[in-house]
Amino acid sequence: MRDFSADHRWLSINTATLRGAGTLHAIIEACARHEIRAIAPWRDQVAAIGIERAARLIREHRLELSGYCRGGMFPALDAAGRRAALEDNRRAIDEAKQLDAACLVLVVGSLPGALAGAPASKDLFAARSEVRDGIAATLEYARGVGMPLAIEPLHPMYAADRACVNTLEQALDLCDALDPRRDREGDSVSSDGASRAALGVAVDVYHVWWDPKLEAQIARAGRDRLLAFHVCDWLVPTRDLLNDRGMMGDGVIEIARIRGWVEAAGFAGYSEVEIFSSENWWKRPADDVLATCIERHRSCV
Amino acid sequence: MRDFSADHRWLSINTATLRGAGTLHAIIEACARHEIRAIAPWRDQVAAIGIERAARLIREHRLELSGYCRGGMFPALDAAGRRAALEDNRRAIDEAKQLDAACLVLVVGSLPGALAGAPASKDLFAARSEVRDGIAATLEYARGVGMPLAIEPLHPMYAADRACVNTLEQALDLCDALDPRRDREGDSVSSDGASRAALGVAVDVYHVWWDPKLEAQIARAGRDRLLAFHVCDWLVPTRDLLNDRGMMGDGVIEIARIRGWVEAAGFAGYSEVEIFSSENWWKRPADDVLATCIERHRSCV
Repeated sequence: MRDFSADHRWLSINTATLRGAGTLHAIIEACARHEIRAIAPWRDQVAAIGIERAARLIREHRLELSGYCRGGMFPALDAAGRRAALEDNRRAIDEAKQLDAACLVLVVGSLPGALAGAPASKDLFAARSEVRDGIAATLEYARGVGMPLAIEPLHPMYAADRACVNTLEQALDLCDALDPRRDREGDSVSSDGASRAALGVAVDVYHVWWDPKLEAQIARAGRDRLLAFHVCDWLVPTRDLLNDRGMMGDGVIEIARIRGWVEAAGFAGYSEVEIFSSENWWKRPADDVLATCIERHRSCV
Repeated sequence: MRDFSADHRWLSINTATLRGAGTLHAIIEACARHEIRAIAPWRDQVAAIGIERAARLIREHRLELSGYCRGGMFPALDAAGRRAALEDNRRAIDEAKQLDAACLVLVVGSLPGALAGAPASKDLFAARSEVRDGIAATLEYARGVGMPLAIEPLHPMYAADRACVNTLEQALDLCDALDPRRDREGDSVSSDGASRAALGVAVDVYHVWWDPKLEAQIARAGRDRLLAFHVCDWLVPTRDLLNDRGMMGDGVIEIARIRGWVEAAGFAGYSEVEIFSSENWWKRPADDVLATCIERHRSCV
């Protein structure tokens, strides 16, 4: 297992962690000040400053992208909505490619309308079927471009509105169904030199830490399907279902134990910090947040 | 599948649903007014009026007990704490027996101290091990008394503080490990005449509805391990992790579909309504809550 205690070279910052810190331009400059080597930006933050400018800033600061957030959200109210989702996913892949991201993270979606608070269906089976079809269609395009897709299983508390893929086992079943040969793309080689499958998973400890099958499923995923590793912490108590994630070390997740499993499976990429925290970290200055991320990366990840 | 639309003979009321309605005495009288045949009381509500009086009221109103809530909470900070938990579980079994409950529901516990907001450990593996040992010891006592134990897998969002058993598969793995022969007790026959294993599960749709393996695991459980079936609904959005459960029909759970699976496996007992709702149902008069439970039992369960 890699020793993270001496430096933060394998730290990546998911830019959602700095939602309170202004534009992507400001976030990138803050990361550069702290000698952070990698980020994972969100599409809205990229769009807000323009992708050309984002790409230039990323190049200028020699930042790697541990991932690009996010594609997915496949289920829709009707065929037109599903078509629009597929088109949007193709755009996300093109953007990820333009920014040279390691993968496009997929938050797959669930019951149509639920994210807006007005679910138009209760049929989780239909949602799963639409997700499967959506990934299949998107994978075809992603293969052509050479952009790996990382299905992120979300915590079951998001099953209604954000993702109907809620365990690593379920995500890997999808991978095996849609990419049975674990096809590699010629240019899908991650920063650690590992080859990667065209379809894999993003393992976020926040979503999967509770799972009694986690260790076994991480081993099953193997090096080529482990496309991203996200960290934060589960606070006790958790006061909000979405925006009360904790800084590593402030909660109860045995992050290093899980990183051990991921590395035992061959993963040697970035540990990406993704913290949604409307009442705490989003209210603090970017330099404080990043200094804490670095310190906790070295001591708690 | 049984037709629930014509009457509410298979409706049971978990008394937590009426947390705002006063004493267990008042709750029992309200249930009697609505011709409800079964309840599942909580220990604190029983203790508040005294178990002798509770038993007498239950007899007088000819109420069945679809379950007794609850045992469990096995992990503790030290050996003394674990011993105290075992003693408390034996008392809970005695009470369940005295009240002639169909089963004692087990909310197994997790990280010591977490329920009080101060987790003293992050070791989920240790918690699971203590839970296993605790159930094993408790099962021995329960077998002697003839009281079936129903492990209730809780939603993964309670993995830190309430239960480290979070899927039906995990609960059934525990059952198979601790009760491999599915031993039946002579007097463990439920109201539908079915024999029941000494160790089984309580399936609460709120906790398990999201699980892609739910149907298969319900089939695996089979008639003798399905000791209780709880219903309420998952609201979108859910505003609180604990006390924002919905009335059947107000959320996104396909309750009837899940009941179909449970009945296909042989379950023919009560459908027990358990709603924690501090901002809605707990604020309403008991008669309104019960009238709604009955109406939704007939139309949405």
